[in-house]
Amino acid sequence: MAKKWVYLFREGDASMRDLLGGKGAGVAEMTRTGVPVPPGFTITTEACNAYYESDKQFPEGMWDQVLVALKEVEQQTGKTFGDPNNPLLVSVRSGAKFSMPGMMDTVLNLGLNQSTREGLAKLTENPRFAADAYRRFIQLFGKIVLGVEGNRFEHLMDEAKGHGERLDTDLSAEELLAIAEQFKQVIKEDVGVEFPEDPLDQLRAAIGAVFSSWNGRRAVDYRRINKIADNLGTAVNVQSMVFGNMGDDSATGVAFTRSPSTGEAEIFGEYLVNAQGEDVVAGVRTPQPIAQLKETMPAVYDQFHTIAKQLEAHYKDVQDVEFTIERGKLWMLQTRNGKRTAAAALKIAVDLVREGVIDKATAVQRIEPHTLDQLLHPMIDPAARATATVLTTGLPASPGAASGTAVFDPDEAEHMAADGHKVILIRVETAPEDFHGMVAAQAILTARGGMTSHAAVVARGMGKPCVAGAGDLRVSYADQSVSVGEQKIAKGDWVTLDGSTGEVFVGKMPTVEPELSGDFAEFIAWADEFRTIGVRANADIPRDAKVARAFGAEGIGLCRTEHMFFEGDRIDAVREMILADTLEDRRAALAKIEPLQQGDFEGLFREMAGLPVTIRTLDPPLHEFLPHEDHEIEALAAKLGVEFAKVKSRVENLREANPMLGFRGCRLGIIYPEITEMQANAIFKAAVAVKAEGIEVHPEVMIPLVGNITELKIQEELVRKVAAEVFAAAGVELPYLVGTMIELPRAALTADEIAQTAEFFSFGTNDLTQTTLGLSRDDAGRFLPSYVEKKLMPDDPFQSIDQRGVGQLVQIGTERGRSTRPNLKVGVCGEHGGDPASVEFFYRAGLNYVSCSPYRVPIARLAAAQAALGDGKRDK
Amino acid sequence: MAKKWVYLFREGDASMRDLLGGKGAGVAEMTRTGVPVPPGFTITTEACNAYYESDKQFPEGMWDQVLVALKEVEQQTGKTFGDPNNPLLVSVRSGAKFSMPGMMDTVLNLGLNQSTREGLAKLTENPRFAADAYRRFIQLFGKIVLGVEGNRFEHLMDEAKGHGERLDTDLSAEELLAIAEQFKQVIKEDVGVEFPEDPLDQLRAAIGAVFSSWNGRRAVDYRRINKIADNLGTAVNVQSMVFGNMGDDSATGVAFTRSPSTGEAEIFGEYLVNAQGEDVVAGVRTPQPIAQLKETMPAVYDQFHTIAKQLEAHYKDVQDVEFTIERGKLWMLQTRNGKRTAAAALKIAVDLVREGVIDKATAVQRIEPHTLDQLLHPMIDPAARATATVLTTGLPASPGAASGTAVFDPDEAEHMAADGHKVILIRVETAPEDFHGMVAAQAILTARGGMTSHAAVVARGMGKPCVAGAGDLRVSYADQSVSVGEQKIAKGDWVTLDGSTGEVFVGKMPTVEPELSGDFAEFIAWADEFRTIGVRANADIPRDAKVARAFGAEGIGLCRTEHMFFEGDRIDAVREMILADTLEDRRAALAKIEPLQQGDFEGLFREMAGLPVTIRTLDPPLHEFLPHEDHEIEALAAKLGVEFAKVKSRVENLREANPMLGFRGCRLGIIYPEITEMQANAIFKAAVAVKAEGIEVHPEVMIPLVGNITELKIQEELVRKVAAEVFAAAGVELPYLVGTMIELPRAALTADEIAQTAEFFSFGTNDLTQTTLGLSRDDAGRFLPSYVEKKLMPDDPFQSIDQRGVGQLVQIGTERGRSTRPNLKVGVCGEHGGDPASVEFFYRAGLNYVSCSPYRVPIARLAAAQAALGDGKRDK
Repeated sequence: MAKKWVYLFREGDASMRDLLGGKGAGVAEMTRTGVPVPPGFTITTEACNAYYESDKQFPEGMWDQVLVALKEVEQQTGKTFGDPNNPLLVSVRSGAKFSMPGMMDTVLNLGLNQSTREGLAKLTENPRFAADAYRRFIQLFGKIVLGVEGNRFEHLMDEAKGHGERLDTDLSAEELLAIAEQFKQVIKEDVGVEFPEDPLDQLRAAIGAVFSSWNGRRAVDYRRINKIADNLGTAVNVQSMVFGNMGDDSATGVAFTRSPSTGEAEIFGEYLVNAQGEDVVAGVRTPQPIAQLKETMPAVYDQFHTIAKQLEAHYKDVQDVEFTIERGKLWMLQTRNGKRTAAAALKIAVDLVREGVIDKATAVQRIEPHTLDQLLHPMIDPAARATATVLTTGLPASPGAASGTAVFDPDEAEHMAADGHKVILIRVETAPEDFHGMVAAQAILTARGGMTSHAAVVARGMGKPCVAGAGDLRVSYADQSVSVGEQKIAKGDWVTLDGSTGEVFVGKMPTVEPELSGDFAEFIAWADEFRTIGVRANADIPRDAKVARAFGAEGIGLCRTEHMFFEGDRIDAVREMILADTLEDRRAALAKIEPLQQGDFEGLFREMAGLPVTIRTLDPPLHEFLPHEDHEIEALAAKLGVEFAKVKSRVENLREANPMLGFRGCRLGIIYPEITEMQANAIFKAAVAVKAEGIEVHPEVMIPLVGNITELKIQEELVRKVAAEVFAAAGVELPYLVGTMIELPRAALTADEIAQTAEFFSFGTNDLTQTTLGLSRDDAGRFLPSYVEKKLMPDDPFQSIDQRGVGQLVQIGTERGRSTRPNLKVGVCGEHGGDPASVEFFYRAGLNYVSCSPYRVPIARLAAAQAALGDGKRDK
Repeated sequence: MAKKWVYLFREGDASMRDLLGGKGAGVAEMTRTGVPVPPGFTITTEACNAYYESDKQFPEGMWDQVLVALKEVEQQTGKTFGDPNNPLLVSVRSGAKFSMPGMMDTVLNLGLNQSTREGLAKLTENPRFAADAYRRFIQLFGKIVLGVEGNRFEHLMDEAKGHGERLDTDLSAEELLAIAEQFKQVIKEDVGVEFPEDPLDQLRAAIGAVFSSWNGRRAVDYRRINKIADNLGTAVNVQSMVFGNMGDDSATGVAFTRSPSTGEAEIFGEYLVNAQGEDVVAGVRTPQPIAQLKETMPAVYDQFHTIAKQLEAHYKDVQDVEFTIERGKLWMLQTRNGKRTAAAALKIAVDLVREGVIDKATAVQRIEPHTLDQLLHPMIDPAARATATVLTTGLPASPGAASGTAVFDPDEAEHMAADGHKVILIRVETAPEDFHGMVAAQAILTARGGMTSHAAVVARGMGKPCVAGAGDLRVSYADQSVSVGEQKIAKGDWVTLDGSTGEVFVGKMPTVEPELSGDFAEFIAWADEFRTIGVRANADIPRDAKVARAFGAEGIGLCRTEHMFFEGDRIDAVREMILADTLEDRRAALAKIEPLQQGDFEGLFREMAGLPVTIRTLDPPLHEFLPHEDHEIEALAAKLGVEFAKVKSRVENLREANPMLGFRGCRLGIIYPEITEMQANAIFKAAVAVKAEGIEVHPEVMIPLVGNITELKIQEELVRKVAAEVFAAAGVELPYLVGTMIELPRAALTADEIAQTAEFFSFGTNDLTQTTLGLSRDDAGRFLPSYVEKKLMPDDPFQSIDQRGVGQLVQIGTERGRSTRPNLKVGVCGEHGGDPASVEFFYRAGLNYVSCSPYRVPIARLAAAQAALGDGKRDK
């Protein structure tokens, strides 16, 4: 007896992917569970392999089995292949184990010929439909099965329509039949065969074409690139066609088992009576809501409802189904997991757990972490979008939407906000000295700078919307206006930004606040049950720390002390310090800053009671704190009582060719130890003061830009000396750590040495990316977008970590650091700490925690949970 | 019988370092070979260990053996220990296997007391000398053996001299004796013992003190740091004193067995009759040339001459000897390898080989490679230095000396040079557009910039002297002058630079040309017999290539194509290309540059006939080629027929925050493929043209700043496409390679991938240092000198490679690259290619070649030979 090459749908199930392919196993599974699926059969992948082994001949017995299966399908449908009175038509499609582009597309309506077309016309009472189906079938068959150049058919169609004068729908049945005849002529000319009128000939040819497509150029390339074995073979699915346009007892529709926009647990969908699937999509007629079906065809609706629920329970997820009703009989054509909004995804996952359909781990794995971002920020009222005027589109640099009046100066932003106005700060780009204006603004818009520009980073840190690098904008500070082409926004005009899409709108638009239901908190708490690495936040000021804690941050992973330098008048003392000629002058200026810093740190320690707070000593090049314009320099000189020329020359002198690689980080503290000393004093005095209030404090002092162990040692000794002095003076001892940022390749490569002194590492992946890739994030805008587009890099390496390069240094640094100090605490505090793919990488690299901007903490928590679950960790 | 603890000098030899220590074995070796050394004996290191084992008691029998040895010394010298009429005095000093700081200093004249002092006074007929020797002995013994605080003695001496009113030499014999008595009193007060009058007590105490110093704090620390075992112990050397001041038949002197300044094979030295070693050093009396001795004491001279030659033959190197003649008898006090000038070192090494004393390998290892630099450049006539006025001192950025008249503008330098004037170009700092002025100048002086600034790198490349970063200079372009304090040099004034020392002199000074004798060529050829890695040169223009080849370069390792962009008028075309708005405009500008580049490459290929020439495609940020001052921009705008504002804004637009990490390297060629295309055309057309002249060409096209394999692949495919087109058009096929610079950490870390496409690697260690250490060489001046000074880094990492960090990436990159492509050719083309320590590292890392500036090629050849020899490779 010949091998079994052909399986009826009812003979297979989901486990038979190897033999029946993904599609065949899926449709078999539906059939097996009692869902009414148009009957059909699958020819196995083994048959495909046998076909190749026997020099492209069907293996022995296969065709006979196809004929037997076809008989069975005829019986099930009550139709007969080639019968003009009640013709059975079928679709033929490929279906390998893995979904694979380059394989044969679907051939629909196979079985049509002159006589069955007439039968179809009669049955549907729609000769034009039958003619068009016939024309389409010949075209598709000609192109896909017989290999005729597709544009030869298209050219004829185009001609028939008068080259764009008429639409497809304008062609009459007669015209379509004429075209069909022309198509047959083309086939004959092109491949030298007559178009096969015999449905069995059609079927035989189509099956052969599917088998052949397995070794088509694109399929072979795809397998090579994706490392899929060549000997898997493809299956062939032959399924009976059903028609929703056979009268008023026929219909077609689509539905979700729950609402894809809210997640509400009600069937959601629409249908059209006496129509084909195409008609629903084309939108020519307005479909009816699915509830209507209950009234017009109550029995069918009940059956549909039951099946929908059954599919959802079977696949344990919301299903997006397509169905057709042919003469009162319901057929399910397709079911797949339904796409949904973030809000719906959350509600559905939580509901499914409550209903006992899935467990928590499954729920946690269901939601793309980055989609949570939508739930954490206000958005533009969808209803208002339709009539809005888009001024321009920039980079979606920080999510959320906000309206306000345009201002172009940070001081003005501050004043107007103080007077109760909502303002949008618009700048060519922002610098640290604009910070107060950014705090005051509802949102920030810049003409220059990328996703990791100053504006973007600071805005994300504060959870404010930001559109950055909107290159079309012409900002004029002189004129206090911004224009795009002819359109102009002056100071005081209303603007609306959508930081999630990058859109900039003219005028004021209503926004809707995110509804953070109790579901959200519950869901994220489930994630924490599986998460094994910590999530901290990057926060510089108490306000940010408070937000971070509310979002579940387990400490501060990075406090950039210099961000406080611009608050209020303290920038004057900072500038005085930088411009000091002598150690005494510098100390005098530092003495003014110290109590202010101490106050900041006290605020952080209070907000983070009981949790670790990592404070980085001064990092940026000093030039960043100085004014750049002559009038600003003049004002500063007057304030300091020094001549303009001296200040100007000092400012010039501090300018660097490559500030990123210049006099910054611990290099500042090594050359000017008094700066580190001041900061250490502020940290430990703050710790002592807050501890005295009965609050537990865990300061972690972090030395930046360390390249060799000696640098760290010098700074560490200084910090410990100050700590000992402060503790001795206060008569207390507090636990604290001294560690370093690993942000230079050399630090990662010599981590074994550095860990001799460092009690913790925190990978500064922003700077580590800049140095490892030799890529300035401020300058990359001129080529990086093009690089990502050309796939020279899989992603923007400042958004998702470059695993092969920068990631390798993270791994090396972690391993070597722990080789010296096995209990070394290792974290990451670059922007990557909030990127799900990066979080997964850091989990695999064995890091103890990630730290990200406060508004990304929930995303990082979920990503970390998924990483652990993906690694088989079902609980902590 | 007790163990043998004491060895007379005549009982030991050079092989007994473990037992007798380095010093003891050395003096024994001299004695053994018949050199008249003042007799003495060595107490073994075993005795020291036994001393510690028995709780600081001399081991059994040791003291008796000391007394026996002392008797023997008395016999040999005819003097007796403690005999007032003819006292034997000895020195006592420590001597471990390895020379070790922190061990006991020498105690001289041990054996002196009241009565032997009188005997010494009578014998030398110099009571003051005897009194001073006695005073010094008590002081030294008190401090070193008895442990009295040294400043207690110094304080008394200071008082006796009226606190600076009188000198040591003003003190009379009587005063010195009074001081000696005060010293004894101090000893009694301080340590509670009488100063020992008995010479044997003195000796016993001194031996114990040497043993104890083995476990002194500094010695223990030194051993720990240098990983020297604690159980080696120290030996004690006791040697009879001899005196050159015992009358006119006594003398003392120093000599070299060959001239230390020229290497001439004649004894070179001087002596003083009736004097002590101190008198020679003090320079109170003028010593006589050693030839004089031949006349005054012919027998002694003959003996000395014979011994000197014998020592040289024994130690196989020039000896620097000290000798004393005591009453007509010659004693050799010390011999050691003599220090010498580079010229002398070369001549001596070559002569010794010719004389059959040493072999070539030894000769090659004798010379510090960096000293060759002195031989390759002119230097200031030493005679003229005495009366010279030093204006200031900067960094010795490029060696050699030159005089010329001051000019402050590169155009003017060019014009004046064309008129036959010798000029020195003085600038605050130089930029690529000053190149033509640097070419025209004799030497370059800058006020800003370090050892790797533009001025320094370019000057070294051209072999021109350069003093860089002379921070005291106030350069005024407006005034066309430079000043330091009150001193001013105006345009046209003569200046002289010494680029080997960094000195800047006022006025014109005579210089002496290096005499490159045939010895040099012969010596360097010997080095090549042992060298196993190649040495190429970095050369951008045919002139440099010619020099490089003359110095023995085996190819060009780096041709920076952009250095040619500033020659003549071509910069206009380059600027036109950069400012072009459209691809067409850019191509038009490139078309003007192509034939010029082709001409340059033809010149290089001709000079390097038969050798490989590595040409790097365009590397620097485009902004470097643009004018920066408004008047220059205006001129350019006029030339291009574009409005000023447009050019200005384009220039502004191309400015980068961190150009080092910006839009440069292969990124330019990826975004503007037409640039790479033009350069590839120029390269291959040049190759074809030169080949047609019958000259063998080996182009190697090098793609810079590659960070990932795809970048390289895109550029490589383009280069190969152009090559194929050019070859097809010419009907020839030439061999060529396409490779890449490895200058980003990511490139080294992913070298296995990159080597799939790259046929060679060249480590760009300058940029690799900048990225790995996060250190901009343009900006490091503000902290790097302080870092090197504080030992935070062993060396300036831009001069000698950071082996632990950057070197690790070189190793990783080489290993991984060869894991994919086993025959991968790997070189280095950073400044480090000419640094001997770095060359040794590259040799160990398995590189195929180094490439350095032409003038450093001989240095690299020698360093590479020494690396191979140090690794046990006696021939290729």
